[in-house]
Amino acid sequence: MVRKINENTITDAVIDQMSGTPDPRFNEVMTALVRHLHAFAREVDLTADEWLGAIRFLTAVGQQCTPHRQEFVLLSDTLGLSSLVNALHDRRASDAATKSSLLGPFYRQDAPMKKLGETIISESEGPQVVFYGRVTNAAGEGVPNALVQVWEPDETGNYDLQKHDPSVMDLRGCFHADSEGRYYFRGICPTGYMIPMDGPVGDMIRAQRRHGYRPAHIHFIISAPGYRELVTALYVAGDDHIDSDTVFGVSDSLVISVNPKDPNSPLPGRPAIHYDFKLAAAAKSAAMSGRVGVDPSQILQKAH
Amino acid sequence: MVRKINENTITDAVIDQMSGTPDPRFNEVMTALVRHLHAFAREVDLTADEWLGAIRFLTAVGQQCTPHRQEFVLLSDTLGLSSLVNALHDRRASDAATKSSLLGPFYRQDAPMKKLGETIISESEGPQVVFYGRVTNAAGEGVPNALVQVWEPDETGNYDLQKHDPSVMDLRGCFHADSEGRYYFRGICPTGYMIPMDGPVGDMIRAQRRHGYRPAHIHFIISAPGYRELVTALYVAGDDHIDSDTVFGVSDSLVISVNPKDPNSPLPGRPAIHYDFKLAAAAKSAAMSGRVGVDPSQILQKAH
Repeated sequence: MVRKINENTITDAVIDQMSGTPDPRFNEVMTALVRHLHAFAREVDLTADEWLGAIRFLTAVGQQCTPHRQEFVLLSDTLGLSSLVNALHDRRASDAATKSSLLGPFYRQDAPMKKLGETIISESEGPQVVFYGRVTNAAGEGVPNALVQVWEPDETGNYDLQKHDPSVMDLRGCFHADSEGRYYFRGICPTGYMIPMDGPVGDMIRAQRRHGYRPAHIHFIISAPGYRELVTALYVAGDDHIDSDTVFGVSDSLVISVNPKDPNSPLPGRPAIHYDFKLAAAAKSAAMSGRVGVDPSQILQKAH
Repeated sequence: MVRKINENTITDAVIDQMSGTPDPRFNEVMTALVRHLHAFAREVDLTADEWLGAIRFLTAVGQQCTPHRQEFVLLSDTLGLSSLVNALHDRRASDAATKSSLLGPFYRQDAPMKKLGETIISESEGPQVVFYGRVTNAAGEGVPNALVQVWEPDETGNYDLQKHDPSVMDLRGCFHADSEGRYYFRGICPTGYMIPMDGPVGDMIRAQRRHGYRPAHIHFIISAPGYRELVTALYVAGDDHIDSDTVFGVSDSLVISVNPKDPNSPLPGRPAIHYDFKLAAAAKSAAMSGRVGVDPSQILQKAH
């Protein structure tokens, strides 16, 4: 008996053929993927020309990827999928903690270790600001010696990786919090910038008449033994794009303001940004940890 | 006011930001895509590691594409999306017509023009068979002079493009039907084969314990002024994989048998395969026409 394939029977035919998948989670994910993908095509009555357009677009996205650029991550970001994966990740934590935000493509593992109070500026000339606060657990107790990694773009909106010889580092640093979980360092007031618009994702953004900007922000990764790694960013209140981030990284709880005179600052007399980070206890299973982000060079190395 | 982004609000935030898209159809398709993509991620509670695996996989698929290979089409085929797009295409026709099937990656536009009754074999040594039938309209009236393009793999399951110098053509030909829509030509009895398994789609197929085979078939494109182009294939009854085609091209109405002695054959005394094709009237709008298929080299040329 040969199956009658039509627009309704095809979905079960595919799911049947995949049903021998030995890994139950892989089978679950692929079954749901096929159901949603087919439901989408049926709902919009996808034409052959539109399908071909999608094949062309996805091929161009894949071919744009290099060890220094991840266009599929950018696509995921601009469709809100990365932000959704972050939100699901946060919901899975055992404790209420600071919200995750996008890692983005400009993290480096080899940023210099610095002492509390030092500056991360080596070349930039933007207005200086002090960042300070505490790293605590869910109960508000300080996490001694927590590792705080930070990076931000310069006053023109470019990260060092985009501007300089990659051997020159600017606006990055790693700090250990003190015995009460306090951190503080100097940097520049964060700036905003446009996502890379010269690839297929940029074409999509323009076709949708979106502005392509990210609001001003600074990235943080905070970690300590026994706690779940926190990948997040702080966003500057009042930025023109604070409620229209092209990659949906901003959430209200991550918005900060610059205080021109903060008497509580550990480096008083300078403008300061104050934020306390709360870490969740370490996840019990591997599926609940996992960094929400990616190093483009690592992907291309591991690609087939 | 800054939006609170969580796993439920993110979807509307994305759709709001895309809502200025000037092309209403593009907006409709992208809105539905985002809704289904997010619903999928929420349903399976997609983890950061799984998301990263998907980014890696899609990047590898894109990087596998060349002017001679389209791994995204293969992915669409193996997930049943191409077959679904065919089914939606067929449903959109004004008349009941022969069903579409997958074009596949081995079509050539420059196949030689031949006379009715000639052979398409130039090198292969498989068992010979006669293909014959009529091309009609929805009312069963012959379509005079209809253009019939055919191609098939050789007895080892390889198309000429896979085996020979590309300048050597084998097992392809174009025929004009006679004044009553009749066509007939000689070829080899169709064979089956495995899809390309040396890329990321092959990895997926193996992880799902699917066999990777397509059942024996021969491809047809049939066209005539005033009719909608028909891209289809005929599948040989009794093939081991007739009901488990890895790319879901087989439908019951496209299954044929070899008749060892067919008194009605225009070339009697040889095994024959008989099939009558029915064409739908030409579509009124461009969205209803459009070939369900693709030339890999054309995609890479047009990619960004």
